[in-house]
Amino acid sequence: MIPTLEWTPEGVNFLDQTKLPLEETYVLATDYKQVATVIRDMIVRGAPAIGVSAAMGVAIGIDRSTATTIPALNEEVAVICETLAKTRPTAVNLFWGIAQVRDLYNELAAKNTPIREIKAAVVALGQRLYDEDIAACKRMGAHGASLMPKEGTVLTHCNAGALATCGYGSALGVIRGAIEAGHKIHVFADETRPFLQGARLTAWELMKDNIPTTVLCDNMSAHLMSKGRIQAVIVGADRIAANGDTANKIGTYGVSILAKEHGIPFYVAAPFNTIDLATAHGNDIPIEQRDAREVTHSNGKQMTPDGVGIENPAFDVTPAKYITAIITERGVLRAPFDESIKAMAQKGTN
Amino acid sequence: MIPTLEWTPEGVNFLDQTKLPLEETYVLATDYKQVATVIRDMIVRGAPAIGVSAAMGVAIGIDRSTATTIPALNEEVAVICETLAKTRPTAVNLFWGIAQVRDLYNELAAKNTPIREIKAAVVALGQRLYDEDIAACKRMGAHGASLMPKEGTVLTHCNAGALATCGYGSALGVIRGAIEAGHKIHVFADETRPFLQGARLTAWELMKDNIPTTVLCDNMSAHLMSKGRIQAVIVGADRIAANGDTANKIGTYGVSILAKEHGIPFYVAAPFNTIDLATAHGNDIPIEQRDAREVTHSNGKQMTPDGVGIENPAFDVTPAKYITAIITERGVLRAPFDESIKAMAQKGTN
Repeated sequence: MIPTLEWTPEGVNFLDQTKLPLEETYVLATDYKQVATVIRDMIVRGAPAIGVSAAMGVAIGIDRSTATTIPALNEEVAVICETLAKTRPTAVNLFWGIAQVRDLYNELAAKNTPIREIKAAVVALGQRLYDEDIAACKRMGAHGASLMPKEGTVLTHCNAGALATCGYGSALGVIRGAIEAGHKIHVFADETRPFLQGARLTAWELMKDNIPTTVLCDNMSAHLMSKGRIQAVIVGADRIAANGDTANKIGTYGVSILAKEHGIPFYVAAPFNTIDLATAHGNDIPIEQRDAREVTHSNGKQMTPDGVGIENPAFDVTPAKYITAIITERGVLRAPFDESIKAMAQKGTN
Repeated sequence: MIPTLEWTPEGVNFLDQTKLPLEETYVLATDYKQVATVIRDMIVRGAPAIGVSAAMGVAIGIDRSTATTIPALNEEVAVICETLAKTRPTAVNLFWGIAQVRDLYNELAAKNTPIREIKAAVVALGQRLYDEDIAACKRMGAHGASLMPKEGTVLTHCNAGALATCGYGSALGVIRGAIEAGHKIHVFADETRPFLQGARLTAWELMKDNIPTTVLCDNMSAHLMSKGRIQAVIVGADRIAANGDTANKIGTYGVSILAKEHGIPFYVAAPFNTIDLATAHGNDIPIEQRDAREVTHSNGKQMTPDGVGIENPAFDVTPAKYITAIITERGVLRAPFDESIKAMAQKGTN
């Protein structure tokens, strides 16, 4: 079990993903501001993990509050939610996680529930969302396993693994599910510049599970596809619009085009709460721009000349037309995605 | 003038491209073995620069020989040429540069030319190839300028600039030619993992010339293309097959597919000696695999977990069908490239 994040009596304990793979260290967040920092600094990252982290962030904020009246606590909860919502703009799971705890809080507060009981309830909800996330990943693995090659190499971009969720993973969960079902899979992990989630995180967690893994630079996959060395692509998602357009780590869109050009299936695996029915189209998804230093510097050393311009969008949008299928814990979605998503949403949870 | 390499009385002086952009230091190669090391370790790189470096390597080998008879010198020249030929397999210019000097040597040796005169002649040839390379780049710039947007952003991959040639550049020579002709061009430079030729070298030399430049990670270009922010792509070449298939820095092939998908023209700029008429098809071009450490380590720090597999092909092949035009010093080649290349080869030099 990879300890991505954990609720403890002392606070939320996060595996520090900026230090992997060489150091396995932890950051204990003892208040909601520290949880916000952990999310913003990408000590925890990955849309599903961000969602549960944010929920636990609201829960710890409420739990540690010294407010003695509901009106006073209401004011604090507004600040807590606002602080956490400002950490990262793209992953819709962040807002989902905040809303889950805030909605429960609002419901209990409206009933004048004793503050002690409110605290116990929101902490329990954070724990439940954690458990549900792992269960959802395992269901994704079961639903998606048959889509993976019986024997072959699967390319993934970024890290949509145990480290991006509370455990097991979305895209890597499908790979784990396929392996558990007897498939022989070798994983090609794009290193995923500039943050190297593939080289550092995907490689680390797959090696831990003894899954054969090869790291490549992001610009090498087209060459390997042309040599017939990649049988499928699977990635996670940070937000899926109602029409199936999918925001994911920068570079995903390019990989989807390369896959199409080589006739290779391109899958997205994500919990259903990654689908944002309020966002009609991929163009409406806000794309986070991160600090230029992630591109200009490497291990503290400057790699680019002084004064050069830098682009550092953290995500891109893959239009639905490049996606073969979206694998969720409720089942597999196929084109036309606007219809299949709507139908699955109406059917309700799981 | 960017001093990529220079013949001096003390030896061949190379700008150390592994130290750019932060340090401008030089490596003086005083014998042919040192020239071979400089090429193999990528202190100098870029197909045209490699070609002239190899020619100067043979010249310095002959010039510094203590052989007093032609038969003795013949044996040395064979070893010199073999040593230099083994440095890097993909760029055909390497073999071209060696052959230029070896052919002249053979001709003079067959006539029993005094060794002192042979030495002077091969050294002079090295210098002439250097001058011709710069002249060829400037003609490429003149031929290609009109293909560049009047005002817009041009993406380039790796470094096909002054640093990849004896000066001015092939792909960047076309950009320089367009700017001299009054075009307003902003350059997007792919950082070009793992060796970062774009982030380090292209950015450095364009900044020196005050050409507006932005560095991006290799996985960001598709996103920027989808936003209409790239009007053309231009790259260099390490070897062009007789049918137009082009080997260039790893990642070029992927960029060509992305350009096609977005309706953006994709140009190759290379001196005519990059075209290898003896290689019929891109599949016949040998692709150099480089040390895994280029991918696993960054500034001396390991970025990947112990034991993970690594891919590190240094080049890929872009099939001719993705290439809008090939710009050479003799003129612009268009599809069908097998025919246009043949016709230009038959017309002879320049």
